[in-house]
Amino acid sequence: MRIAVSNCNTTRAMTDAIVRGARTAASPGTEVFGITPAWGPESAEGWLDSYLTAAAVLDALRTCPEPYDALVMAGFGEHGREGARELLDVPVVDITEAGAHLACLLGRRYGVLTTLDRSRAQIEDSLHTAGVGAHCAAVVGTGLGVLELEAALGSGAGMGRLAEAADRARAAGAEVLVLGCAGLAGVAPGLQAKLGLPVVDGVTAGVRLAESLVTLGLGTSRVGTYAKPLPKRRVWPGDM
Amino acid sequence: MRIAVSNCNTTRAMTDAIVRGARTAASPGTEVFGITPAWGPESAEGWLDSYLTAAAVLDALRTCPEPYDALVMAGFGEHGREGARELLDVPVVDITEAGAHLACLLGRRYGVLTTLDRSRAQIEDSLHTAGVGAHCAAVVGTGLGVLELEAALGSGAGMGRLAEAADRARAAGAEVLVLGCAGLAGVAPGLQAKLGLPVVDGVTAGVRLAESLVTLGLGTSRVGTYAKPLPKRRVWPGDM
Amino acid sequence: MRIAVSNCNTTRAMTDAIVRGARTAASPGTEVFGITPAWGPESAEGWLDSYLTAAAVLDALRTCPEPYDALVMAGFGEHGREGARELLDVPVVDITEAGAHLACLLGRRYGVLTTLDRSRAQIEDSLHTAGVGAHCAAVVGTGLGVLELEAALGSGAGMGRLAEAADRARAAGAEVLVLGCAGLAGVAPGLQAKLGLPVVDGVTAGVRLAESLVTLGLGTSRVGTYAKPLPKRRVWPGDM
Amino acid sequence: MRIAVSNCNTTRAMTDAIVRGARTAASPGTEVFGITPAWGPESAEGWLDSYLTAAAVLDALRTCPEPYDALVMAGFGEHGREGARELLDVPVVDITEAGAHLACLLGRRYGVLTTLDRSRAQIEDSLHTAGVGAHCAAVVGTGLGVLELEAALGSGAGMGRLAEAADRARAAGAEVLVLGCAGLAGVAPGLQAKLGLPVVDGVTAGVRLAESLVTLGLGTSRVGTYAKPLPKRRVWPGDM
Amino acid sequence: MRIAVSNCNTTRAMTDAIVRGARTAASPGTEVFGITPAWGPESAEGWLDSYLTAAAVLDALRTCPEPYDALVMAGFGEHGREGARELLDVPVVDITEAGAHLACLLGRRYGVLTTLDRSRAQIEDSLHTAGVGAHCAAVVGTGLGVLELEAALGSGAGMGRLAEAADRARAAGAEVLVLGCAGLAGVAPGLQAKLGLPVVDGVTAGVRLAESLVTLGLGTSRVGTYAKPLPKRRVWPGDM
Amino acid sequence: MRIAVSNCNTTRAMTDAIVRGARTAASPGTEVFGITPAWGPESAEGWLDSYLTAAAVLDALRTCPEPYDALVMAGFGEHGREGARELLDVPVVDITEAGAHLACLLGRRYGVLTTLDRSRAQIEDSLHTAGVGAHCAAVVGTGLGVLELEAALGSGAGMGRLAEAADRARAAGAEVLVLGCAGLAGVAPGLQAKLGLPVVDGVTAGVRLAESLVTLGLGTSRVGTYAKPLPKRRVWPGDM
Repeated sequence: MRIAVSNCNTTRAMTDAIVRGARTAASPGTEVFGITPAWGPESAEGWLDSYLTAAAVLDALRTCPEPYDALVMAGFGEHGREGARELLDVPVVDITEAGAHLACLLGRRYGVLTTLDRSRAQIEDSLHTAGVGAHCAAVVGTGLGVLELEAALGSGAGMGRLAEAADRARAAGAEVLVLGCAGLAGVAPGLQAKLGLPVVDGVTAGVRLAESLVTLGLGTSRVGTYAKPLPKRRVWPGDM
Repeated sequence: MRIAVSNCNTTRAMTDAIVRGARTAASPGTEVFGITPAWGPESAEGWLDSYLTAAAVLDALRTCPEPYDALVMAGFGEHGREGARELLDVPVVDITEAGAHLACLLGRRYGVLTTLDRSRAQIEDSLHTAGVGAHCAAVVGTGLGVLELEAALGSGAGMGRLAEAADRARAAGAEVLVLGCAGLAGVAPGLQAKLGLPVVDGVTAGVRLAESLVTLGLGTSRVGTYAKPLPKRRVWPGDM
Repeated sequence: MRIAVSNCNTTRAMTDAIVRGARTAASPGTEVFGITPAWGPESAEGWLDSYLTAAAVLDALRTCPEPYDALVMAGFGEHGREGARELLDVPVVDITEAGAHLACLLGRRYGVLTTLDRSRAQIEDSLHTAGVGAHCAAVVGTGLGVLELEAALGSGAGMGRLAEAADRARAAGAEVLVLGCAGLAGVAPGLQAKLGLPVVDGVTAGVRLAESLVTLGLGTSRVGTYAKPLPKRRVWPGDM
Repeated sequence: MRIAVSNCNTTRAMTDAIVRGARTAASPGTEVFGITPAWGPESAEGWLDSYLTAAAVLDALRTCPEPYDALVMAGFGEHGREGARELLDVPVVDITEAGAHLACLLGRRYGVLTTLDRSRAQIEDSLHTAGVGAHCAAVVGTGLGVLELEAALGSGAGMGRLAEAADRARAAGAEVLVLGCAGLAGVAPGLQAKLGLPVVDGVTAGVRLAESLVTLGLGTSRVGTYAKPLPKRRVWPGDM
Repeated sequence: MRIAVSNCNTTRAMTDAIVRGARTAASPGTEVFGITPAWGPESAEGWLDSYLTAAAVLDALRTCPEPYDALVMAGFGEHGREGARELLDVPVVDITEAGAHLACLLGRRYGVLTTLDRSRAQIEDSLHTAGVGAHCAAVVGTGLGVLELEAALGSGAGMGRLAEAADRARAAGAEVLVLGCAGLAGVAPGLQAKLGLPVVDGVTAGVRLAESLVTLGLGTSRVGTYAKPLPKRRVWPGDM
Repeated sequence: MRIAVSNCNTTRAMTDAIVRGARTAASPGTEVFGITPAWGPESAEGWLDSYLTAAAVLDALRTCPEPYDALVMAGFGEHGREGARELLDVPVVDITEAGAHLACLLGRRYGVLTTLDRSRAQIEDSLHTAGVGAHCAAVVGTGLGVLELEAALGSGAGMGRLAEAADRARAAGAEVLVLGCAGLAGVAPGLQAKLGLPVVDGVTAGVRLAESLVTLGLGTSRVGTYAKPLPKRRVWPGDM
């Protein structure tokens, strides 16, 4: 099986890190490769960035020459998921929903730890429209921007910020945590050990769910809102 | 006062029709002009189109050389609204929410008449995230595509389809109707007369709400989710 | 265009202040006049007062000899709105809903600053039944009674109380504030400047929404819950 | 124990019928008497009537010379309940909520059979604000006005209309019915036998709940929204 | 009338205390007796215990030789209620829902004081599925286990813990309190006097509601989810 | 990895069929075995049966001598899930929630096809309390009892009933179907082919989710409602 993982931003180093994280969750025989948009923002933090990444990722998916069996969209709370479901003939799993789906199996309420507080409404919307927002106790920002994460995690300050955010999520009722940024790939095991409660990583959760759909022969429903896009004239940036 | 009205698709004839509709609602002294994206789909019908238009409209707003006091976004149920709020220093009103806000003042529940049934989930999401979805009784498709509307309305068949969709909305509890497509500009008075209940047009509602915000000195809040976009490297299609 | 503004209580000085506030928002050519109930409480603070004002305002509307094109009901969170919609042949806008409708266009969640905490449930109900309560983050009392407001605002203490209440609303997630008492007319610009976020005044919002409905040819739907009152024997206090 | 039952309209024959119904449910030693407003409509059908009755009932309660231990408010879906809680030093039970509370104990969802469809939104609001609306499957009108009920029930046509409305409620998921008009007092046993499912009468339910509160030493909470009315100048119609 | 009160656990001293509490609320002529499961846990604290008690209580009900007119299920937040409705030909009232129903009549929101925080989700679910959870402001644990209550209340420490929990419930908006454990029988009057707001005891509330249903001739609906159990082979522990 | 699959009823042939279905979804290297309760009903249809199975399954889990890495609970809409989470040191996935989690990834709304209509409320509750009920469009009964399924499916009549139920679910907005009975194992591929939309089988979904949790090192959170059961005296039927 081949699983494509799309980064939402143009930073190839992040794509590489996400793919590395994805591979840790893949079953034997599952191959993972990354897709990086050719345009858009270098990181997604806020609505403007999010909408820009949605179209950029769709453009990249449209022109990706490689075949694959399922797509994992890595961009926590970012838009575009439903568009990819229309466009592609393979199952699509977004890491936002993926983390939440698994978290619901582990505790009564979950909390999301993300980068900046400004992203909270986006993430809440994304969970709600995915049908899995009911048990979200809180979305909490760490105050670290996407591109600051690597350095912060390297110095140890990042773990401190995550632990503080986790405390706020716990106070709001969270019994399980979801890592709300693809840039946090790899942090889950250490944080889980430190905090003593389950920590779900959206990327690895997404890989497992995508594999599950493929194995079970399940694909996107075409009878309703995710019908194939209508044929029409579209000017794509990738063609300009 | 100058109000910009952004069409979500690349069809300039639709921009022109929307601007004509918008002008019928503008106060004396208010000037209206249109913005058409340079790329994207010729019409927006479904999630893929919607996300494509969101980025295309933001790109057009970013590069629009003309000054204006408020933006009305014409694209019923299409994405991008919150991104424009981040990007611009003037108030932003989306026709989806605009129609719903006025409809709530006229009856207990409202129904939305739109083009294709596949757009229903998008419109429901858009109303929900705008905070004005609670009294939506139904979103009903007419089965007419965006670019079929003009011909259908010309021949009279369009009015029939709208009336049938209105019946379904009424059966679901709607006491007021909202026209759920910018391409329906101008239809409201005739439909209202025919059906005997109020019919709200999102474009004209949007113009009035935008004027109201400007007149009252109200602008987008910067203290939360709609803070200004962070400075960073972004590759925009319009610059490619 | 002539807009009537009904005060909910019998204090004519408050009617006058509300009308002055309303006029600041009226378009050129729009005339505003006030209606004061002949009976009821001198201020509305709580459920008993609210129900008393509802009937008193309806009685005043029934007997008002002057013609008008739309009604703005000034009494934040007070009852009666739907009764006026049944009774009158012109559009009716309540300042509670009006403030909330505009606030939704400016930020993700709004907070209401009101007089006494005891009114919170009433205001929550009013926003909910108007269909615009979903994005209300909090209703916060300042602890100042309706008739204490003028003196408090004159001495500067009022602004301090409002700022404290605003802090609590912000902590609950509000990005926009709505002034939850007709007696706060005129405070919005100063508070907005002081706090650095948008402050919506229900009375001025109501005037603009009422004008919009009239201009767009929109009136109350008669096909459902707001049908005309049935003819029957009613003993009105105004006739006793 | 003495229980007062307030009719919402001025029709004394209806008060008498309601009191007769209430007495069928009263425990030995419980005395029931009726209160009829001195002004207002002869029947309550719609929002205007409802707000008029709310103030008229409060005026009647204020001036009622007789002592009592609890109040049952008979006016299905009519306003005023919370005002009476503020005003009185004894427990207050509204027949709308009373019927729903007992219905929840008997089946998974309940339906309300009422007079005219125009009252549906009022009843939905009343159930919602009483905290007991979650399991309401439907509110269904019989098409019979309040003052038509007696004749219709006398001729047998009334039972037919109720049965038809019950079928619609059943189709919407109702497993229990609540009689949504004080004028239906006495119908419950016959309808229950005819339809084969429990039928709750709000008046008798209200009497039992009121007795229960008195017996258990429970009264309205004064620490929040139902605090005693503030002393102030109020002009009551009953004093005019 | 005979009312059975089922304890959820195997501790007969608790059954006796619950029956004593129930008798304080029973009308003259109502006889109360207790049912104690023959197996299960000595106290119910958490999900495992709760599911164990549900089956144990149903087994005890199935084999109870004594006739009765209604059942009150004493086990706050414990499962089994709907099963008893299927099984028995008499009305069934659970003390969880009973306390909440009466509390809704006394204030705008209620809070539940219970034993351990781990039970909060169970109680929230139970209130939600009973249709009466909408006005629950908070469920607050005292930190006292079920079997520690008696000693704690004897020493005075228990009242202190209840008062602290009540403060937290008040801060969350509760205006009325519900005692969330059958082991708190008898505490309500003292706590009510101490705190100055109404305190509802589920057991006494349940007795009054059960009596009301019997008196009004109301029984469980058989037309939907609470139809009689299908005949089939069942191996019951009580028969093993 | 070893996965235990617990049947909720005492019918060993059903356990065997469920295990066979589970094995079709298991990854290479995953071993699946079944657990059958020693007591309880031969099939679970309704609340009484459901509560009986919950305790019987917990009793069987408590005494199961075999080690395993995760539990899949097969009993669609049946109780007990949270008790197993408390009891066991391995992840627990219930087929009700499992089917819904995957269905949310495939379409906007899903429908559940189950045996008897009487089970609808139970299934709705189970989805709601699992946090994944928001996108459930409908739960539809086929009218076939659990033990009738095998014969009905053998004769072809079963597929017809499922197709009729699917039509009702589609009319309610479902774009994906979930098979709402463990006895429907094996039907999904054929039904999916016949109906042209994705059909999720809860058992196979549960196996994949359970494997995913184990592989990702995720277990039940112990910091909140699913803390380990408190030590106490419990009389279990299995010990009697």
